[in-house]
Amino acid sequence: MDSIDVDELRPPERLLMGPGPSETHPRVLAAFGTPPVGHLDPGFVEMMDETQELLRATLGTENEWTIPVSGTGSAAMEAAIANLVAPGDTAVVPGNGYFGDRMAEMVRRAGGEVAVVETAWGEPLDPAAVRDACATHDPDVVGVVHAETSTGVLQPSMEEITAAAHDHGALVVADCVTSLGGVEFRMDEWGVDVAYSAGQKCLSCPPGASPLSVNDAAMEKILDRDEAVRSWYLDLSLLDEYWGDERAYHHTAPVNNVYALREALRLVQEEGLEARWQRHRRFSAALQAGLWELGLEPVVDENARLPSLTTARLPDGLTPGAVVATMRDDHNVEIATGLGAFADEAVRIGCMGHGARRGPILETLGALGETLVAHGVDVDPGTGVAAATAERSADEKP
Amino acid sequence: MDSIDVDELRPPERLLMGPGPSETHPRVLAAFGTPPVGHLDPGFVEMMDETQELLRATLGTENEWTIPVSGTGSAAMEAAIANLVAPGDTAVVPGNGYFGDRMAEMVRRAGGEVAVVETAWGEPLDPAAVRDACATHDPDVVGVVHAETSTGVLQPSMEEITAAAHDHGALVVADCVTSLGGVEFRMDEWGVDVAYSAGQKCLSCPPGASPLSVNDAAMEKILDRDEAVRSWYLDLSLLDEYWGDERAYHHTAPVNNVYALREALRLVQEEGLEARWQRHRRFSAALQAGLWELGLEPVVDENARLPSLTTARLPDGLTPGAVVATMRDDHNVEIATGLGAFADEAVRIGCMGHGARRGPILETLGALGETLVAHGVDVDPGTGVAAATAERSADEKP
Repeated sequence: MDSIDVDELRPPERLLMGPGPSETHPRVLAAFGTPPVGHLDPGFVEMMDETQELLRATLGTENEWTIPVSGTGSAAMEAAIANLVAPGDTAVVPGNGYFGDRMAEMVRRAGGEVAVVETAWGEPLDPAAVRDACATHDPDVVGVVHAETSTGVLQPSMEEITAAAHDHGALVVADCVTSLGGVEFRMDEWGVDVAYSAGQKCLSCPPGASPLSVNDAAMEKILDRDEAVRSWYLDLSLLDEYWGDERAYHHTAPVNNVYALREALRLVQEEGLEARWQRHRRFSAALQAGLWELGLEPVVDENARLPSLTTARLPDGLTPGAVVATMRDDHNVEIATGLGAFADEAVRIGCMGHGARRGPILETLGALGETLVAHGVDVDPGTGVAAATAERSADEKP
Repeated sequence: MDSIDVDELRPPERLLMGPGPSETHPRVLAAFGTPPVGHLDPGFVEMMDETQELLRATLGTENEWTIPVSGTGSAAMEAAIANLVAPGDTAVVPGNGYFGDRMAEMVRRAGGEVAVVETAWGEPLDPAAVRDACATHDPDVVGVVHAETSTGVLQPSMEEITAAAHDHGALVVADCVTSLGGVEFRMDEWGVDVAYSAGQKCLSCPPGASPLSVNDAAMEKILDRDEAVRSWYLDLSLLDEYWGDERAYHHTAPVNNVYALREALRLVQEEGLEARWQRHRRFSAALQAGLWELGLEPVVDENARLPSLTTARLPDGLTPGAVVATMRDDHNVEIATGLGAFADEAVRIGCMGHGARRGPILETLGALGETLVAHGVDVDPGTGVAAATAERSADEKP
């Protein structure tokens, strides 16, 4: 066998201001690089307990069944759907973005029927439309995306949606991938039955262990299924034996990912959850002030605009891919193109976790100003930074 | 909301000599703690290519479809089974250990029928029995566990087993979780169609990104399925769009886990794969010489005994749980109890990757000697270390 030469690890140094992974706090990286212990070691079991307690506080839930799933956000998403949806069930899902589409796909894989609440990309669901869909389709499950990463839409009126579902006896599964830890989310208060998220957005933890919480009503349904869940790896009735009181071996947990997530959640608690929500609001307001000053335009109405991710239409004649490439190659700043309905006209810029701070926001706006000029836009490149600074200064005055 | 106080990360410092996670090389930990880049960044795409190339070399395969699955070893296992087994398929699986049982469970979740090659725990499969099972059940898939982590059995005669399967038109899926990178495994030469593994065994990489390789014949079957794979997250036809030429977004890869796996695989190449196999053989011989000298007895015959994991029967009157606890609590050395048929009489001791070295082996044997004495065994505690040292010295002489 020939040996293969691959160079030492030297990833490019990017400022991560796209839809995730976001900037990582040095303490989280240090946790990642800590020597692992065994996944059944009493020392690790204690950390599992702590991680679950921290997750509950961050989600706003008392649910016992609150765990990090051993995979990235899509694994937590599929754990939610594959367990909750039994063959023959009907699920109502949102039609206003990429992650609603993915939810539908996972419902089908689980053997369920899909009914879509048709809504334009870039707009939130109308609770009345959800209520109508429940009346028409009598679903077992209603899916809602609290923070749609593909469009930058925040779903308001979460309690009206859960009420509509519960009135029809359906359980609610909520995607809070791009909101958890950065945007107000109150699982129990809002009546969400199952919620899933990811590390690499507002929690600023590199992906690999992903939050999932299931309340008693949903868990009762899951434990009462006639047919086993179609994934062994994601079967919550088995995972419970590991994360529950028994601590029986199911699979080997990604120990270092749990270390890192635990540290990221500690940082949330140290800052205070509500203070963290407020920080995301303030810095996204500064980011957006800068974007509009540079001539970009919001895709989403203000009442449903996510603080953690802004989708912004570019000036005429610019293609998102070219802008993203220049930002990356000339300035080492990662942002992303729009998706779906906005793929050809918009970029997506994150304001998440450790990136929702003055330095990253100003660096992004400075780089974007220069990028626009390089692509022939007639703009003073520094005006984005100036507008963001003014917005932030106004905010700091009482 | 009340805030929660959780202490800074201070895991116990254990020497990891159980069935995994194994000791981690400092360079792998440093890779883990490196700031992530975006999962679609050209810099990361290059690292994906390199990681795939390194995986191929370590598996002994030319298979294009060779990737790290975004989860722990069981995720790679389920990716193998869930893709390869379509509803209505029959799979022959081994009955000689815990991981054969898990294979059977995953086949059922995928909608397949299971036929078990009944074999005692602690013994390898007889290729003739596999051939008989193929004649009786005409399977679509034959599963084989190359290294059974629950018993310490190495499956010899891999080529006879793949030949038996292929003669009946079945595809072979092999579990090399506890062999890859430490024990001879030659995927293409042996005719294995699908192989999966994990990081935290002989590769000495904390879990979270797990090797999977699929040859053309298996991939043809997977892409030709009538019914979609029951897991969206693990669907290889979708994963191929990310890991293949398109590099289209499927899910967010666990970037830091890929960094770490890449570094672990680089270490394999630097040492040389065959040199690494030889190192595992030498140090496991030393470990076993020490164990037998201390009065433990092998569970597995020498011709099928794994270098990377030894299952050893304890002297009469000792319970595995008590020995494991003393090793951990008094000596900070992790070993594990037996499983299944050996749960009440044996312990399992690893000799894997960065743990397959003089220091860890001697420390383990020294701690075990003292543990036996503490539990009332009449033995000179240092004799295990002395026997291992003598074995190793004899080995070093030409």
